[in-house]
Amino acid sequence: MSQPRGPLSQLRRGHEELVLGLLRKHGPLSRGELGKRCGLSRTTLYDILAALVAGGAVVTATPQEAPRGRGRPAETLTLNPDAGQAIGIDFARRALHVAAVNLAHEVVGSASEPHDADLPWEQRVELAARLVGSLTGTGAGALRLGALDAIGVGVVGVVGSRAAYDAAHPGTEPDGGVAPHPAQMLLRERFGVPVLLDNNTRLAALGESIWGAAAGGQDVLYLRLSHGVGGGLVVGGSLHRGAYGLSGEFGHITVEPGGARCDCGGTGCLETVASIRAVLDAFRAAGGRAADVPELVKAVRAGEPTALTLLDGVGTRIGEVLAALCNAIGPSVIVIGGELAETGAALAGPIERALHDHVMPVSRHRVSLRRATLGEVAGALGGIALVLHESPLLSRYPAGPDLAQDPTPDKELR
Amino acid sequence: MSQPRGPLSQLRRGHEELVLGLLRKHGPLSRGELGKRCGLSRTTLYDILAALVAGGAVVTATPQEAPRGRGRPAETLTLNPDAGQAIGIDFARRALHVAAVNLAHEVVGSASEPHDADLPWEQRVELAARLVGSLTGTGAGALRLGALDAIGVGVVGVVGSRAAYDAAHPGTEPDGGVAPHPAQMLLRERFGVPVLLDNNTRLAALGESIWGAAAGGQDVLYLRLSHGVGGGLVVGGSLHRGAYGLSGEFGHITVEPGGARCDCGGTGCLETVASIRAVLDAFRAAGGRAADVPELVKAVRAGEPTALTLLDGVGTRIGEVLAALCNAIGPSVIVIGGELAETGAALAGPIERALHDHVMPVSRHRVSLRRATLGEVAGALGGIALVLHESPLLSRYPAGPDLAQDPTPDKELR
Repeated sequence: MSQPRGPLSQLRRGHEELVLGLLRKHGPLSRGELGKRCGLSRTTLYDILAALVAGGAVVTATPQEAPRGRGRPAETLTLNPDAGQAIGIDFARRALHVAAVNLAHEVVGSASEPHDADLPWEQRVELAARLVGSLTGTGAGALRLGALDAIGVGVVGVVGSRAAYDAAHPGTEPDGGVAPHPAQMLLRERFGVPVLLDNNTRLAALGESIWGAAAGGQDVLYLRLSHGVGGGLVVGGSLHRGAYGLSGEFGHITVEPGGARCDCGGTGCLETVASIRAVLDAFRAAGGRAADVPELVKAVRAGEPTALTLLDGVGTRIGEVLAALCNAIGPSVIVIGGELAETGAALAGPIERALHDHVMPVSRHRVSLRRATLGEVAGALGGIALVLHESPLLSRYPAGPDLAQDPTPDKELR
Repeated sequence: MSQPRGPLSQLRRGHEELVLGLLRKHGPLSRGELGKRCGLSRTTLYDILAALVAGGAVVTATPQEAPRGRGRPAETLTLNPDAGQAIGIDFARRALHVAAVNLAHEVVGSASEPHDADLPWEQRVELAARLVGSLTGTGAGALRLGALDAIGVGVVGVVGSRAAYDAAHPGTEPDGGVAPHPAQMLLRERFGVPVLLDNNTRLAALGESIWGAAAGGQDVLYLRLSHGVGGGLVVGGSLHRGAYGLSGEFGHITVEPGGARCDCGGTGCLETVASIRAVLDAFRAAGGRAADVPELVKAVRAGEPTALTLLDGVGTRIGEVLAALCNAIGPSVIVIGGELAETGAALAGPIERALHDHVMPVSRHRVSLRRATLGEVAGALGGIALVLHESPLLSRYPAGPDLAQDPTPDKELR
């Protein structure tokens, strides 16, 4: 271990990191909100904030609108938007999505590019670097991640519980020794910063809970209806992973005992009823004509009874599963994403009806069902959220010891 | 706000509270483990520990068994067992359970007493005080909670997300203004300490995850099969509550669409199939004879086919629900408690079979099904865990900013 510096300067540094961590996690906060969350005395906090503002790491802003009858609105503090950007990359099966957010939590830009499913990792990372360069205006070679210094990455498949990789810090191998994912190693090599990794559907859940349909939601259930059926849970504002990284597998809940065989090895899974392929196959078997989801959406908009009846049945199954999960987990918001959500009310209606019929009556009016809003960059944005919330490498206070878990409306300390 | 003391003494106090919070949450830890979790420098930590040991708040112990080939075992530090006790009380519908744990996390004792369902709260609290006094040997009047200074309480019914009550600290009203539970007010008045409250079945889940069948489990699903069917989730080592305190309602998941009416207002809930009454009714309807669970257990042990067939069906339903929840939540341990668990393998066998059949194949060998071990005091012990983990009133670092979320085997810092 390196020699510790003087205890006082070290304590001060710890408090600075605590404050920076809270601003990284929450975005703009007033001094009063910061005071409640950090637990420092007003004197200490103001002293530290003054130094951070003087140093350029933190900037102040006055909100445009004053709350009614409250006089001068409270000045907020935020990480300096020019001090760096957070980058998220979603390595989906056949496409790559990237997004950048500045340190004030504003989405700076996003981009996507399709590719073959068998594109080697070296080329995927090359492509990612190019897309990131186009977003940040720095060019791939000159990318400066600035004060953030980490990349959040989504990949397909099962990812364990602690998947940060930083070659510069021994002991950060994901899952206590399991080899890092190829994307992690290549990105680490390329950008020289730690790389955090998680399942891309789970990351989409986190993205929707921060920038999307469930923005601000602390307890969110996200269901994606795409080529596969999966999802993710946000619990108390954080991504839920489960004991072995095996959570959010809503698509493999049995809905038809003894039903069709599923890719997971089981039978009668929700995915065998509610995936794109399952729905299109069933539509054609019932005499409908649709080669893909846009054509199915057309049939729905034209009011074709075959399509409506089919989606009614599929939606009912989905709503029953969601009701069971609501009773168990108690989310405040359910977000439905994926291409099949584009069928709109034809699917959302029966989902909502079955949810209403099967959730505990006392919960009926407490859970809100919404359509995802982030589209295909949800996973890349979730990668950024991973960095903003969880990077164990950035700070000794990763997400801040967030004392005010249930914050009351802003009250200034003075 | 009171005038802050000098910044240095205040920082030091904060670090002491951080260390005490970690020992309260985790029980005995070595200096190395503490160092990893608290993020303080070795110099600062050792300095603070020396002061805490000198002051009597913390004591040292050398483990009996040395790890193989590791030389002298690492000395551990723990809160002084004599410095105080944590008290948990479970106000069940027709009985009262209390438990006491010393600050070294050892269960000091527990006691139960049945009472009428309509016993007024004043008398329940009186009874609780008497039972607690008998445990701690202090007599109800002289009860000294010492260094811990809070009581954790379980009650029947829905409890919101932040239910600590301390009349001495304005702003601690549960759920941002909702009136405190009568048990909270009466206990606060009686003992003069903050009172934390949660649903007693959820607390039983927490208790089993610390002292019971799932001891040490970070992701635990607990199902109680009793007069009602309910449960709780432990997620990442903490009690999960859900957005409105409505989580763990496993008994109200629909298993028979259009089935029997349930007390919750729904139909075909798991509770209509797997509660004590439902099982006994079905047994009698099938020609069996059993007035209560012990008689049912007798029939099972005698190998009565009617009983075995019935429990096979009930267990299958339970296992199917558990499989769905495993896919969604990913626990490492499932604990089955409540009186019906006493039927043993006749119920546990079919539960395990259905779980195996319906959980994602990749998860099959990762989740462990166990019978609860804490019996009727699980909820009272969970109340203690609530105090040890979560009291927002005890410290500015309630559970400690626990940096090592995925601790590797003990390594001393030197």
